[in-house]
Amino acid sequence: MLPPPPWHYSGDLLTVEYRTDPEAVASLLPAPLRVVGEQDDPGAVAMIFADWQSCGDDLAELDDPIRSQYKEAFVVVRCQYEGQVYSRCVYIWVDKDFALVRGHFQGYPKKLGSIWMTRPVTLGKAGPRVGPGGRFAGTVGYYDRRMVDVRVTLREACDSNGFVNGHAMLHSRFMPAIEADGIDSLDELVTMRGIDVELGQAWRGDAEIWFGESPVDEIERLAPLEVIGGYWRSVATTFAGGSLVDPHHTDRHHIAPHRADPHQEPGEPA
Amino acid sequence: MLPPPPWHYSGDLLTVEYRTDPEAVASLLPAPLRVVGEQDDPGAVAMIFADWQSCGDDLAELDDPIRSQYKEAFVVVRCQYEGQVYSRCVYIWVDKDFALVRGHFQGYPKKLGSIWMTRPVTLGKAGPRVGPGGRFAGTVGYYDRRMVDVRVTLREACDSNGFVNGHAMLHSRFMPAIEADGIDSLDELVTMRGIDVELGQAWRGDAEIWFGESPVDEIERLAPLEVIGGYWRSVATTFAGGSLVDPHHTDRHHIAPHRADPHQEPGEPA
Amino acid sequence: MLPPPPWHYSGDLLTVEYRTDPEAVASLLPAPLRVVGEQDDPGAVAMIFADWQSCGDDLAELDDPIRSQYKEAFVVVRCQYEGQVYSRCVYIWVDKDFALVRGHFQGYPKKLGSIWMTRPVTLGKAGPRVGPGGRFAGTVGYYDRRMVDVRVTLREACDSNGFVNGHAMLHSRFMPAIEADGIDSLDELVTMRGIDVELGQAWRGDAEIWFGESPVDEIERLAPLEVIGGYWRSVATTFAGGSLVDPHHTDRHHIAPHRADPHQEPGEPA
Amino acid sequence: MLPPPPWHYSGDLLTVEYRTDPEAVASLLPAPLRVVGEQDDPGAVAMIFADWQSCGDDLAELDDPIRSQYKEAFVVVRCQYEGQVYSRCVYIWVDKDFALVRGHFQGYPKKLGSIWMTRPVTLGKAGPRVGPGGRFAGTVGYYDRRMVDVRVTLREACDSNGFVNGHAMLHSRFMPAIEADGIDSLDELVTMRGIDVELGQAWRGDAEIWFGESPVDEIERLAPLEVIGGYWRSVATTFAGGSLVDPHHTDRHHIAPHRADPHQEPGEPA
Repeated sequence: MLPPPPWHYSGDLLTVEYRTDPEAVASLLPAPLRVVGEQDDPGAVAMIFADWQSCGDDLAELDDPIRSQYKEAFVVVRCQYEGQVYSRCVYIWVDKDFALVRGHFQGYPKKLGSIWMTRPVTLGKAGPRVGPGGRFAGTVGYYDRRMVDVRVTLREACDSNGFVNGHAMLHSRFMPAIEADGIDSLDELVTMRGIDVELGQAWRGDAEIWFGESPVDEIERLAPLEVIGGYWRSVATTFAGGSLVDPHHTDRHHIAPHRADPHQEPGEPA
Repeated sequence: MLPPPPWHYSGDLLTVEYRTDPEAVASLLPAPLRVVGEQDDPGAVAMIFADWQSCGDDLAELDDPIRSQYKEAFVVVRCQYEGQVYSRCVYIWVDKDFALVRGHFQGYPKKLGSIWMTRPVTLGKAGPRVGPGGRFAGTVGYYDRRMVDVRVTLREACDSNGFVNGHAMLHSRFMPAIEADGIDSLDELVTMRGIDVELGQAWRGDAEIWFGESPVDEIERLAPLEVIGGYWRSVATTFAGGSLVDPHHTDRHHIAPHRADPHQEPGEPA
Repeated sequence: MLPPPPWHYSGDLLTVEYRTDPEAVASLLPAPLRVVGEQDDPGAVAMIFADWQSCGDDLAELDDPIRSQYKEAFVVVRCQYEGQVYSRCVYIWVDKDFALVRGHFQGYPKKLGSIWMTRPVTLGKAGPRVGPGGRFAGTVGYYDRRMVDVRVTLREACDSNGFVNGHAMLHSRFMPAIEADGIDSLDELVTMRGIDVELGQAWRGDAEIWFGESPVDEIERLAPLEVIGGYWRSVATTFAGGSLVDPHHTDRHHIAPHRADPHQEPGEPA
Repeated sequence: MLPPPPWHYSGDLLTVEYRTDPEAVASLLPAPLRVVGEQDDPGAVAMIFADWQSCGDDLAELDDPIRSQYKEAFVVVRCQYEGQVYSRCVYIWVDKDFALVRGHFQGYPKKLGSIWMTRPVTLGKAGPRVGPGGRFAGTVGYYDRRMVDVRVTLREACDSNGFVNGHAMLHSRFMPAIEADGIDSLDELVTMRGIDVELGQAWRGDAEIWFGESPVDEIERLAPLEVIGGYWRSVATTFAGGSLVDPHHTDRHHIAPHRADPHQEPGEPA
């Protein structure tokens, strides 16, 4: 289904940053990860919509775009670990199976959803322009229920499309033991960061955000208290692998960390 | 499901023009429509992919993009009727029900398919640029079978994205009688043309086209003999209604009122 | 896409009958259709889920079940017309395009939705039995929103799976004029009734019903006031055509032949 | 998305068993797994379609059937490992994300596809009966391409629905290291077997099988040389966890097997 990395991505991001109760963020972080300090806006959350094309190094998927295009919506918080601040994806929906499987490998807790995002146009009435007054919407549906609605009206060019998703990612990759006995066969902390990143002009503006309820979704745990801002930006990035940070980070570990070199220090890249 | 017209459209078109056997075109035209003359390239066909956003006059769909975005792939030929040349859509697949119903109203013989089309990007490796060397693909799937594959590599800017789809449309709107006895309750020839058309720069290049086979599709009736060219262009248009050309254009006409009273004169008000 | 009739259907029906405000029913009936009289339970509504296989006379679709299986959910009320009581479908969602197009021909106002219905099983824990205590659910999603939830717990065998859908159907088939000027090109009243009907044992029980809200759906116009009962039954039927009842039934009629007057100006309303 | 096990399943299985080149089977088995011996029909393959309802122990999914129903198609071969014969799933497509994720946990290499399977009926013409002459089809679509078509015509009741899928399953659960350097972070051999199995009457008959080609699927590696037979059976089963067989079965292992008991010997069931 997937070629080996590197995987290239080009697309547009629609972001709404908002504040939730920092306790809610804390409740989603497994020890020893902790929320960032008071001075660092610990309840800040980024709800991000992405309309991607992606492909392997031979670009084959671009000739068969059903295997190249996908949309995703993901929720990012920050955490601290061993004195460093990371971004961490806590919820994510995608609309293709290749993106789901790729995401599980990367430690994204992906589910399959129905994701939609207004696209900018350059002609006519049926779409916004990327510029002042441009109005963009993003929505998520999951098992027949609307889970997320955001709307952003751009006001001005700016330097960045938010601060919550600006750090290296710190993800957990885990696999419960086949015995289904509460023990994990795999429980790793991994970090990754895009390479060859290209950034278009960022825009910011006013935003609204709404979360729905569902018996099979828990996004309402991060209910918005206050909107920080809305952003739009084109980006491109390449994923060429990440690094194992710590295979022993919780007391659930029953895996030995011998993968690369017994003399290697924990937390170093392999 | 749909607001009243006007309906606004903004999107990108990927077109491959090719020649098929003119007899194949003729076989799809109901009398009194005829193929265009020898000097007018009667076997020319346009296979067009469109990646649209559309909305009604209040733009409400742009705030809920699942109701605004759709892709379609359609096959256009030309025909002559009462001394005039028209474009006519003979096959079309769309991927949303609102577009299907809207199309049936307009006389497009729409089916629901899986349509994909490479999108241009401005950053990174995962997509072509609109310019020399830009390579775009379009595909159609229908009931689990790949029906159409096209690829276009742009070479140069040009004046138009083809000539086959350049006339007013001449479509048939028909509804078989509920008796399912081979008679139609409605059988109209209608014409329509977009208004407020805005056109981006057209590009042309080299193209390939391939059609698949299926027990539930007949696109192979228009098998390509020779490629004319490939095109890419952004466009915007508005549909504000069409015009009835002839409700009696074939001997199949037995419009409902005929059916109600055997003594009634053809063409009289019921 | 479709063979000519007859079309054969075999499947299971899950029905919840309930009462809404009779005014709500009336508001959905075009003149001269009227609600049934006080003594006939004028606010009674049947919300019906169906899990079908269907095929043409050569059964070809059964060898390619993606073209044979579909689910639908539809809302039926009764009306009177020229002294007779009819059943009439006022809302309907289906999950395949062949069923959508077939339904438009029959006068069903079909939309594409996500329809799900618990299936009975004969082994194991993952499903109900058709019998006392058997619990069945039906759901409708439309454009990412849950629109309908019903649940039925069977109690006892009975003679019929409800009374609301028990009459010949009286449907409107209409096609707005291409001029989009508020006039219809086609506006017929048609009636139809299955032939070769086979009925399994009916079961009845207790039921719950819930409707959601959406900007693109109006099922909440028929909000439930009181549940009548829930039913489950296997059925088979064949559609072999219907009958035109009246092409002139409302003052909106301006069937195409009106439009043919040679003295009329092109583009003018008839 | 998922409750903890046990997970209950009730459904129908359509199976075609056939012979492929035993070398093809061997090429899909990682060392130290080997094909079964000559006397055991080493090229035998089972192509199985399943139409399931599944739920957790509280049966909640049965009240929301979009979360309960799914279809899957999977390809099973046999292998030997430490003197014992196992069944092993080498390809599988499912049509819901909950089944995909559950399957990855169990070591099934699941992809999302479009799976369809003729359903038996008890009334009317639009479906077969489970009995002599009953004709069933199964199909798989993946990324717009038809990958598998099987047809089975039942002839007689029998004792079993095939022999290839009759052993305990032996699956690999692996997760490539996040470094994407060819090393695995997890590479386990696990075994599992349903409990509380209930079996309906099995039927057998004549079968046809066809595989398609695709750039993103490799089912044609197991091309059929000869059909063994076709089968239909209702079954129910419960998954309550499996057992770790060997976390060290290949030289790629870099995980220590300390999960269950420090005194346990490597290679024993946990």
